[in-house]
Order: sequence, then C-alpha cells, then structure tokens
Amino acid sequence: MDYETPQFYRVMQYAARADRDVVDMVSGSPDWDPPAGVRAGLREYADGDPADFQYAPSRGLRGLRERIANRHGVDADRIVVTNGAGEANHLAMTGGLDQFDGEEILLADPVYPYYAGRANFLDAETTFVPVADDGRLDPDAVRGAASSETAVVVVNSPNNPTGAVYDADAMAAFATVAEDNDALLVSDEVYDQFDYSGRFASALDIGSPNVVATNAFSKSMAITGFRVGYAVFPPTDGPTGELVDRATTRHMLTNVSGSRPAQYAVERAMETTDSAYYEAARDRLRARIETFCGALDATGATYTRPDGGFYVLARFPEFPGTFENAEVLVDDAGVAGMPGAAFGDARADWLRFSLTTPRVETAAERLVEYFR
Amino acid sequence: MDYETPQFYRVMQYAARADRDVVDMVSGSPDWDPPAGVRAGLREYADGDPADFQYAPSRGLRGLRERIANRHGVDADRIVVTNGAGEANHLAMTGGLDQFDGEEILLADPVYPYYAGRANFLDAETTFVPVADDGRLDPDAVRGAASSETAVVVVNSPNNPTGAVYDADAMAAFATVAEDNDALLVSDEVYDQFDYSGRFASALDIGSPNVVATNAFSKSMAITGFRVGYAVFPPTDGPTGELVDRATTRHMLTNVSGSRPAQYAVERAMETTDSAYYEAARDRLRARIETFCGALDATGATYTRPDGGFYVLARFPEFPGTFENAEVLVDDAGVAGMPGAAFGDARADWLRFSLTTPRVETAAERLVEYFR
Repeated sequence: MDYETPQFYRVMQYAARADRDVVDMVSGSPDWDPPAGVRAGLREYADGDPADFQYAPSRGLRGLRERIANRHGVDADRIVVTNGAGEANHLAMTGGLDQFDGEEILLADPVYPYYAGRANFLDAETTFVPVADDGRLDPDAVRGAASSETAVVVVNSPNNPTGAVYDADAMAAFATVAEDNDALLVSDEVYDQFDYSGRFASALDIGSPNVVATNAFSKSMAITGFRVGYAVFPPTDGPTGELVDRATTRHMLTNVSGSRPAQYAVERAMETTDSAYYEAARDRLRARIETFCGALDATGATYTRPDGGFYVLARFPEFPGTFENAEVLVDDAGVAGMPGAAFGDARADWLRFSLTTPRVETAAERLVEYFR
Repeated sequence: MDYETPQFYRVMQYAARADRDVVDMVSGSPDWDPPAGVRAGLREYADGDPADFQYAPSRGLRGLRERIANRHGVDADRIVVTNGAGEANHLAMTGGLDQFDGEEILLADPVYPYYAGRANFLDAETTFVPVADDGRLDPDAVRGAASSETAVVVVNSPNNPTGAVYDADAMAAFATVAEDNDALLVSDEVYDQFDYSGRFASALDIGSPNVVATNAFSKSMAITGFRVGYAVFPPTDGPTGELVDRATTRHMLTNVSGSRPAQYAVERAMETTDSAYYEAARDRLRARIETFCGALDATGATYTRPDGGFYVLARFPEFPGTFENAEVLVDDAGVAGMPGAAFGDARADWLRFSLTTPRVETAAERLVEYFR
C-alpha cells in the first residue's frame, strides 16, 4: 500500500466538507490545554535578549537536554533534541540502516503509517509482523521474522493504533532479537505518559547497545505543533557509540538545529509541570475510554480496550474499515474515524478512533444509534 | 576537505577559552533586535487556544505561505515552509538529485560549508568552481564545469563568504546553464535584504522551470534560532511541477511539519514590519563595512568590499588564513575570524570576518595595531 502520503488528511477533509455535524476522531492532536509552563515559557522567551533569538546548539538547548537526561537516567551526551518524534524516528531509522548490514526494517502490522512511509522513502525493505489477536506484537513472531537482512526493528509502546503496552519482559525480548540479528531496536515511546496499565517499560532500562529510544513532548504536553522531540542513542563508549554523532551530523545537515522558542518553552514546562498535570490527562482519557468502550459493547463491535495511548481500534459487524465506510460513517453517523486499511492489512477491517475530543460521549451515542 | 562537521565551533570555542577579551567575528548570527512583531507574535501565540498548539500544515501555516507568495509574486502552492534555509536547501538539493540524471552538484569555491557537507552527506559528486578575483562566480566558468553529469548548481547571492551580489544577467546565465544541462539551479537568497549594490536579482524573476529559490527569515529578522525558512519550487503545471510535492513528502517524512510558534511569530512580523526595519539593518551594516574596510586599508590587506551580506573576506600580507593563524589572531590581536580554509581552496589564504557584532570598531583598531 502507499504509505508515502499519510491518509489522515483525506478523511479529515471529507469530514470537514460534510453537510452535517461530525465528531472528529481522526486526528491524534490532544484537545486539552498544554501545561501553564509552556505558555509562561513562550512569554518569557519573547522578552529575551537578541542573542536568545539565535541558533540553539544543534543537539538542543543544554538545559533541556539535561532535564531529558535526568528524566531517563542517562548521560546528556546520548541525546539529540529533534524536530518532534518524527525527526527522532527518522534519525534512529537511518542510523540503524547505516550502522548494520541489512536493508530491512521490521514493522508491526498494523503500524503508524509514518514509519512505513519513512522506510519506503529511505529505500529500505519492509517486513510487517502481524500483531496477535489482543493487538500485541509477540516477541517470538518478531524473532521469527528477523534475519541477517534486518537492520532495524521498530516498536511503539504504548501503541498507536492498538493501545498495547509492552512490559519489561517484552521490551527485553525485542532488544535481544535486535542484538541477535545485528540490528537496532527503535523504541518509540511518545505515549509513555499515557500508560493506564502500570506495565509500561522503557527500552532504555534494558541497557542494550542495540537500542535507540525516541520520544517527544507533542502528546504529553499537548503541543504537537511545537516539534520538540528527542532520541536517546546508546552510550558513546559502547560498540554503537558513534550513532549519536552520526545522527547529530544528519540533523545538522538537514535542519541545522531545532526551533529555539519551542525548546525554551518546553524546558520551562519541564521545570514547572508536576505529575498532577499528567495524571489529570490520564484520568480524562480513562473516562473517555470507559464511555467509548461502553458504547462499543452496545454496538456488538469487537475491540481491544487500550492499555495505553489514546486510540481505540474497533471492528463493527459487517462494516469493514475501508475508506468508503469511513466516509459512510461521517455522513450517516456524524463520526469520523480512521480506516484500519491506513495502518496495514492485519486490521484492515477495523476503524481507529482517537479519543482526543471532548465529544467522545456524543460520538459514542451516535455509534450506538447507527449500529444497533 | 572535511565539510561534514562545520568548523565554526572549533574557532568559536577557542575564542571562548582565550585568556583575553576577543571580538567574535566568526558567528553569522545577527546581533540586533528582531522586529517588534516577532516578540508580539510570540506573546499573542502564548495566549492561544489549545488547538493553536497543534500541528501546523506540513507545508506551513496558510497565512504565512500566502505572505511569502505575495512577497515573491508566485502562487502559494509552489511554497514549502521549512526548518530554516538549511532544510530548504536540503529539500532543493535532494529534489534536483531525484529529478535529474546526473549525480553531481556544482558549488562555488569558496562555499558556505553546509552546502558541501550536505552534498557529501547525500553521496553526490561535488565539483567546485573557483570564483573570479573579485569574488564573483563567472557564469562562463559555471558553464565550463557543467555537463550531463550535473544535477544541481548552487548559487548564493548576496554571497557568504565573498559578499558578491549577482545581477539579473548573471542569474539568467546560471539558469540557462542549468536548463542546458538538465539540472536544477538552487538559488539561496537568504541575504536578499542585505543588498547594498541595488543590483540583487532573484532567480525567481527568470521564470525558469529549472530554478528553486531558497530563503529564510533567520538573517532578515535576526532570528536564526527560530528555524523558519522556505523554498519556492517551479510552477506545478510545468515540466518540473512534481518537485514541490516530492519535497513536501520528504519534509513530512523527516520533520512532519515546522514549529508553529515560530511560524506564527514570523507571520505576524511579516504583517507588521515595514521597510524601515530592513533599511536600518542595512545602514548599520554599511557603517560597519566602512569602518572595517577602512581598517583593512590601513593593514595592507587585500579584500573585496562586500556588495551584500555581512561578511568580509580579507587576506593579510604573509598571514595565510589557516586555523593556526585564526588562533594566533585570537590570542595576539583579540579578534576571532573564520579561516578561509573552512570554505574551500580558492580563498584558503584569506580570513572571513562577520560584521554581526557591535564591536566592529574595536576589532578594526586591534587589526590595525596588530598588522601595521
């Protein structure tokens, strides 16, 4: 399938042109307020010296990198601040392709389309490993698919779109598959603040030289537009120690550096935001999951209750998740969801609903009305 | 030479560690205030709705693209807003390599090191065309170097580091070379607000389908840290009409989109900044050029008075512009300049001085003292 042009816009534009009121459950942009520290940081930055308006260091503002390093318990010299998780994943995937012999990237099916688009764009081979019935990627299935051709294995926990969360054992198993096949495990942990299971484990905790973790403040601070993310590369004194320098060079020759007002605001927000902010976001989403899954029960849909993140994948009886049916749902139910086909083959019959709207209850009622 | 790791930091760090006071003439970051609209725009943005904090369109905020389109008299659908001129040049150069058959990028010598580093990084062949004695790239020399192997010709006017400004005839000649060799002319015009000659001509005025112009607000608005630039691709209905879509895909799969607070502030500043702001910046630099070139006369240096931009290349008698001599100048004269060797071979005996410091007069006095 064509992953190069992510299809989000197609459904969003269709919904925007509809004659009726539509609840947008396509976009993955948080609908809640960013931490007060983000706004305060921008205001403070606006009053700065002219020198503060000039290039940030290519790897990111020093204070921001140190706060990120502290958060993960790693040395700051392993961190490159990027233009969002998108660039972090780009640098990690290209780093793995450069470092290791194979040409293949292993991805889950279903998969967030940007990974697959990026892999195609980088002329990598892609192999898709279907998730299990519960939406989880089985480490044994990944091991079965991996070979000496594999350069990169991408996992994402909490997962978009399945809502799966991988525990420490699963993450360690993924890392071992990478080590055993001379490949890099790229662990996208951008939803790490949205774990409802208490089982989330960062790939960084494994201490493997074959692991790069990527992350961003886009979702956790509700600032997808700021483009502040980061990648944590392996320790510089290990066998893959050059990964961070090569990523820095690529970052520098592509983007020079990231946007400084955004980095400054995030640094301030890291300093001033306490755990209550993140807890409130989880509580909000837990309530929305409750509402939405209750409605799905009433429709007879098959679905997996998410352990993390803010998406629900659901399959309605005799209503496959095609683009055509996503449009039918816009017109006839007033709910816009993302066709499962946009994420691959394994969940092509499903639809993905994002809970980043205050109107989850309205959407739930409309779906019950439509499908019952 | 190794262009992959630009050497600016080496000299800047040496200067920062010096035991004495040093005037920094290495960095190309403006030392003056950004337009008031930049600061006002950031403050206004800080008070926005949560929705304003989410992803900007991948090609950039609509209003910003329209203002850019108006400025250049082109359709907005030709414009991709980028993470600074750095990413604009990256997209333009990769676009040319994808579109045309050759593998070669033609660059001037001396050249801004990022172009050469990027070309190496992209595994392109590089051919360097030495500038003439007056610091200008002769279109005939470019024609002599171009062949069917050439995919991209990069020119930069006003030029870093030579200060050359290319007039309409020169730009048309460069575009013709690109057309005749099935190649793309990438015209980096990031210093276009710093033309003292009145002769600057944009490559866009030529109307060639073989031209991409790149630009940014980094220098003109004194916000190198914001990372807001853009590329103007050929018309979408012409023979190279797909360039803009392919660049958008690359931009999306690398960065998703640019940083929105920075784009918003720039849009506001475009709306509210009048020509007096740019005129004042030119006046400030004209006075610094006067001061600095006067001092160079007193030292017996050879130099070319810049027609544009804010750099002066100078060659001192029996003092070649090596890294070692740049360090001697830091220690013994208290002035940090950039070794000509960092820009290639043709001006390896020269040193580049950036006039983006309020202490040009102090530097000038110190150089006169040291060299006379």
